[in-house]
Amino acid sequence: MRTFVLFASLRNHLSRRFHSQNKNQNQYRLLSSRFLSSSSPPSMASSNSSPAVTIDTINPKVKTCEYAVRGEIVILAQKLQEELQAKPGSHPFDEIIYCNIGNPQSLGQQPITFFREVGLSLHCATIQAILDRSESQALFSADSIERAWQILDQIPGGATGAYSHSQGIKGLRDTIAAGIEARDGFPADPNDIFLTDGASPAVHSMMTLLIRSEKDGILCPIPQYPLYSASIALHGGTLGWGLEIAELKEAVGRCRRPRVLAEENQRDIVNFCKQEGLVLLADEVYQENVYVPEKKFNSFKKGFPIYGVTMGSVEKEEVTWRSLGLLPDIREQIYKMASVNLCSNISGQILASLVMSPPKVGDESYESYCAERDGILSSLARRAKTLEDALNSLEGITCNKAEGAMYLFPRVRLPEKAIKAAEAAKCAPDAFYCRRLLNATGIVVVPGSGFGQVPGTWHFRCTILPQEDKIPAIVSRLTDFHKSFMDEYRG
Amino acid sequence: MRTFVLFASLRNHLSRRFHSQNKNQNQYRLLSSRFLSSSSPPSMASSNSSPAVTIDTINPKVKTCEYAVRGEIVILAQKLQEELQAKPGSHPFDEIIYCNIGNPQSLGQQPITFFREVGLSLHCATIQAILDRSESQALFSADSIERAWQILDQIPGGATGAYSHSQGIKGLRDTIAAGIEARDGFPADPNDIFLTDGASPAVHSMMTLLIRSEKDGILCPIPQYPLYSASIALHGGTLGWGLEIAELKEAVGRCRRPRVLAEENQRDIVNFCKQEGLVLLADEVYQENVYVPEKKFNSFKKGFPIYGVTMGSVEKEEVTWRSLGLLPDIREQIYKMASVNLCSNISGQILASLVMSPPKVGDESYESYCAERDGILSSLARRAKTLEDALNSLEGITCNKAEGAMYLFPRVRLPEKAIKAAEAAKCAPDAFYCRRLLNATGIVVVPGSGFGQVPGTWHFRCTILPQEDKIPAIVSRLTDFHKSFMDEYRG
Repeated sequence: MRTFVLFASLRNHLSRRFHSQNKNQNQYRLLSSRFLSSSSPPSMASSNSSPAVTIDTINPKVKTCEYAVRGEIVILAQKLQEELQAKPGSHPFDEIIYCNIGNPQSLGQQPITFFREVGLSLHCATIQAILDRSESQALFSADSIERAWQILDQIPGGATGAYSHSQGIKGLRDTIAAGIEARDGFPADPNDIFLTDGASPAVHSMMTLLIRSEKDGILCPIPQYPLYSASIALHGGTLGWGLEIAELKEAVGRCRRPRVLAEENQRDIVNFCKQEGLVLLADEVYQENVYVPEKKFNSFKKGFPIYGVTMGSVEKEEVTWRSLGLLPDIREQIYKMASVNLCSNISGQILASLVMSPPKVGDESYESYCAERDGILSSLARRAKTLEDALNSLEGITCNKAEGAMYLFPRVRLPEKAIKAAEAAKCAPDAFYCRRLLNATGIVVVPGSGFGQVPGTWHFRCTILPQEDKIPAIVSRLTDFHKSFMDEYRG
Repeated sequence: MRTFVLFASLRNHLSRRFHSQNKNQNQYRLLSSRFLSSSSPPSMASSNSSPAVTIDTINPKVKTCEYAVRGEIVILAQKLQEELQAKPGSHPFDEIIYCNIGNPQSLGQQPITFFREVGLSLHCATIQAILDRSESQALFSADSIERAWQILDQIPGGATGAYSHSQGIKGLRDTIAAGIEARDGFPADPNDIFLTDGASPAVHSMMTLLIRSEKDGILCPIPQYPLYSASIALHGGTLGWGLEIAELKEAVGRCRRPRVLAEENQRDIVNFCKQEGLVLLADEVYQENVYVPEKKFNSFKKGFPIYGVTMGSVEKEEVTWRSLGLLPDIREQIYKMASVNLCSNISGQILASLVMSPPKVGDESYESYCAERDGILSSLARRAKTLEDALNSLEGITCNKAEGAMYLFPRVRLPEKAIKAAEAAKCAPDAFYCRRLLNATGIVVVPGSGFGQVPGTWHFRCTILPQEDKIPAIVSRLTDFHKSFMDEYRG
């Protein structure tokens, strides 16, 4: 059957004209011959009852694409959650704890008040000058209201509900560039900044730009984030995760298992890219949460102005996407792709500018801002340590120290009998373990196979994001499950 | 040179393990052989100075993709605007009037107060229960505050800053489905609704799903919206805009130039798709603004539950994307693609639910909501009529009646001398006309060639969105320009 689509666009039915008949006939022959030469069974071509598109006639790249962090295990979790709501007590746990994805606020983390206040003040300013009223002054801090007016001045016509420049509002990009400059001590060009609706559209754009065929390879250190393998599959490129590890093993050899990259390791990676003629995509969405006092975040741009793209994120709500010294004609092509989607959401653009210009010493909100930020980061560090220690105390589990971000990637040495049982259940041993864990405890973690792991080794990825008061219960549920699992399958 | 990318991901450097050396060597040979077989000149492969990617090594589909509504003419307009700011009086006009894109609020249209109030109340509720304070009660209408609490209950954990379900928050999709059911009088399944960040990601997803190669064709009635031609080019499909016009000419033959589609025309289109085995993508982003009293909006879903996808939009800020009876396994694939981007922005999801459940009779905000909505629509109708009459009064210009949406697509019969001048300037005659118009008046319109037009005919697309008090000035500037243009080139 033909995958042949008709757009009935209300947009343009509203005032349209027609091609001449002759022209159409030519087009028709041209198109139909194309379809005759396609692999679709002609029998179904004009069937009345058959669906217009089936699983066999869609883009095969979509079928091969997998996205572990929202894959089978999460769909199972959603099913269990519905069962719990419909029939409380129907499972040995009373809630599902989602440790599959870095989604802090879904697990109770409070947003930073200052950012919210600015956003609120700003939007108040857009309806009947509500912001001028005494009630508003009483509701929001003075500096957030002042900041709201500043930002409103940067938005053409103060139109927060309008499409913006394709790269994002210029004034906001100026603020972001200034913040980057202050951070790195090197100039940042606002025209090199593209604001997108999260990291995913930025990654998709780069894959669209760079991948011509499966001959084009994308190298990801493993464990890689499934967004990369998924988008590489969707765009038909080749994911390489062997080569660069061997190369980088030497490149970053000074530290046996790099976690937070030291500056000299970054330099080695940059040189490696220069020598090999590689584009470097630096995913720098976690800049704030580095827990080890002796290490700090260094952007790749800092001191390494090479041909590459770096992505930063603000509470994972908006991504600042800076092209590092890309050729002007390449930037034009990126601009064109950005234009097709018109622009990213304005609230996210505003938030990005706030994150790169937080309250300063002396501002009314400075103390509370620092207190909230540091409170979140120190709590994350404590949670990471607790979970890491608990995991390392379990039979056959080894877990690296988390020096930043919000994830653990423990390795689990599974007994032969468990691996056999997984084979019998027709799934990967780590997926088998994760499913059993979910069914027994309601804790959702992601099988390591979705991230890439050394063949014959098994891991799972687990966020450290449940609120602190829940961690002890999670630890004991995890411990009890693992003990009984190992007892069941120990040879 | 090789397009070979290295991801240095802070996400996963944070706790990673390595492949074994042997494995890497195998991978390495595999990958490198691929690159040797690629067309890139090996000489540059390991050059230190050469850029990692050039215009010749990017995906050619990106180069062929064009997006007229933000193309050359808009880039020129932005340049002129900067010149005006830097040097007022440097051009024969004092401002740029953007009629290139349907962006109402950028031209001064006020947002609907109720929607803003609910959004504000909602976010107030998320910081320190500000919403409970008397000041908030004084700021916002009672029903918007009540609605805010209702919506907050629908958001898991009340976490407005968290990622949601990949399709959008279930409770909000329930509200939207109920609104669609009330509108169409037919059941709507919330599980068939995908909320996206605007129409573009929805169109991209459908193109990704449906296009396997250039053998797959997408039929667009012309003038088509450049989003379609652009995304079809990016995804490597074939745009057909001859065939279906000829076919549909018979199909929708009863009305010679369909603008707002009458119900019987829709039935014909649906039957046409069934017979030909086509997927129907109905872009229904303009549902409210139909100006002719004797016609009203009918969704394609209403009475035509076929295999297809329909897109609705809320003030063009968020798109509700409903798959009409798609096979479950196809919906699974769409879900997977949605998951890769995690979710659309929550504010937009909330707005979508509000638009499908506006204030009802008796609610405090009902009167003001209707007054604002009707005020906008009647003003749009007046502006459309004024511009349409003005255009039709000009030599060689004929313009269809706008029965809805926010665009005019006048045909301009250009003198031979003008066409020759355009050839000399190496651009399409309609682009030549639009550029001259911009340089003389500051008015930005889009050449018809970006939308598709009968060969040998020339059009431009113009929005009706400048505020009413500006319309007279625009009409006289347009008229003066056109007269002098025709005088200059009349044979």
